[in-house]
Amino acid sequence: MTERPAKASGRRPGTSQTREAILDAAMESFTAKGFTSTTVRGVAREAGVDPALVIHFFGTKDGLFDAAVRSRGVPLRRLSEAVEGDRNGLGERLVRRYLSLWEDPETGPRLHAILHAAAASEAAAALLRGFITEEVLRPIAKTLGGDHAETRAILAGSTLIGLALVRYVLKVDALALLPAETVVATAGPAVQRYLTGELDLE
Amino acid sequence: MTERPAKASGRRPGTSQTREAILDAAMESFTAKGFTSTTVRGVAREAGVDPALVIHFFGTKDGLFDAAVRSRGVPLRRLSEAVEGDRNGLGERLVRRYLSLWEDPETGPRLHAILHAAAASEAAAALLRGFITEEVLRPIAKTLGGDHAETRAILAGSTLIGLALVRYVLKVDALALLPAETVVATAGPAVQRYLTGELDLE
Repeated sequence: MTERPAKASGRRPGTSQTREAILDAAMESFTAKGFTSTTVRGVAREAGVDPALVIHFFGTKDGLFDAAVRSRGVPLRRLSEAVEGDRNGLGERLVRRYLSLWEDPETGPRLHAILHAAAASEAAAALLRGFITEEVLRPIAKTLGGDHAETRAILAGSTLIGLALVRYVLKVDALALLPAETVVATAGPAVQRYLTGELDLE
Repeated sequence: MTERPAKASGRRPGTSQTREAILDAAMESFTAKGFTSTTVRGVAREAGVDPALVIHFFGTKDGLFDAAVRSRGVPLRRLSEAVEGDRNGLGERLVRRYLSLWEDPETGPRLHAILHAAAASEAAAALLRGFITEEVLRPIAKTLGGDHAETRAILAGSTLIGLALVRYVLKVDALALLPAETVVATAGPAVQRYLTGELDLE
């Protein structure tokens, strides 16, 4: 959407830069203040535009969140890269990659913002559901193959989301203070079992 | 706090009924509308009192949430009852009990409201962290015993929270449409391994 050539658009020059400035300000605000405290008015002020223009481009706060997340990408996409390689190390690779995304100063706050928004807004939950299904579940299920590949992938995904929620959002000491590699060594086999172990899925 | 005899309090008669009416209206609103959309003003209106009285009793929306959740209890407390009994069936019993709390029409919406609030407010996250630690982790760790009992309990807890988030909040089909007993049969052994299996916790 940001790559559309200017001459093919009927918009006046500068429109796409304005959209980009709004999306930058929106992602900045969603990440720094959270979904709940972000307002269309505040984003417009940061982007130096009239609030009516934000509404014109994106409709509502939900629409603005949707556009900001889609254009900036969900860092989870990089999870599916961890699927490649030795099948026996799959569980540990996924946990390690997932923790590194949460601990990365660039992607961590964005994951936090997205999870927060999904708990606060049904529209954001639907967006996250779509991303998880299309960008994480399907690629992992495709690599796994077999009858219950998608169920196996979402059970693995629920393990990862649970770890992140307790370790990075609730920050319960017993998990938050554990070294990342200890989490990899203990949770990796749980994820591996869901993906490739014997499961009673009839 | 609700059992304090009226004559021991310097408050005028009716104060404790008023507090109760406010807490009922607050829990109702947090559950029906969510933390973000609940306002002190709205709760006061539903309880038939002046907003200043709500502020007088509970301070802020965070304080109101804290008091409402504490006085009405966190349904998670009932989880630790599942710890009693045959040690080998512990994982499946915990998953079954946890899913039943989420699927119960009385406790499910309250768990949803609490998880939502914890993602939206640092104060609510601290409250949930305290409850999980005191009411769930400690009792389970005490029953388990051993050096890493609390770490084992929180790893098991993260599995449960992840299942609930994906199944009941994000509602991803591949997990939301699975029969509860299939979730018990597949996730039970993961929880069991965290609690009693061989883990590399040095």
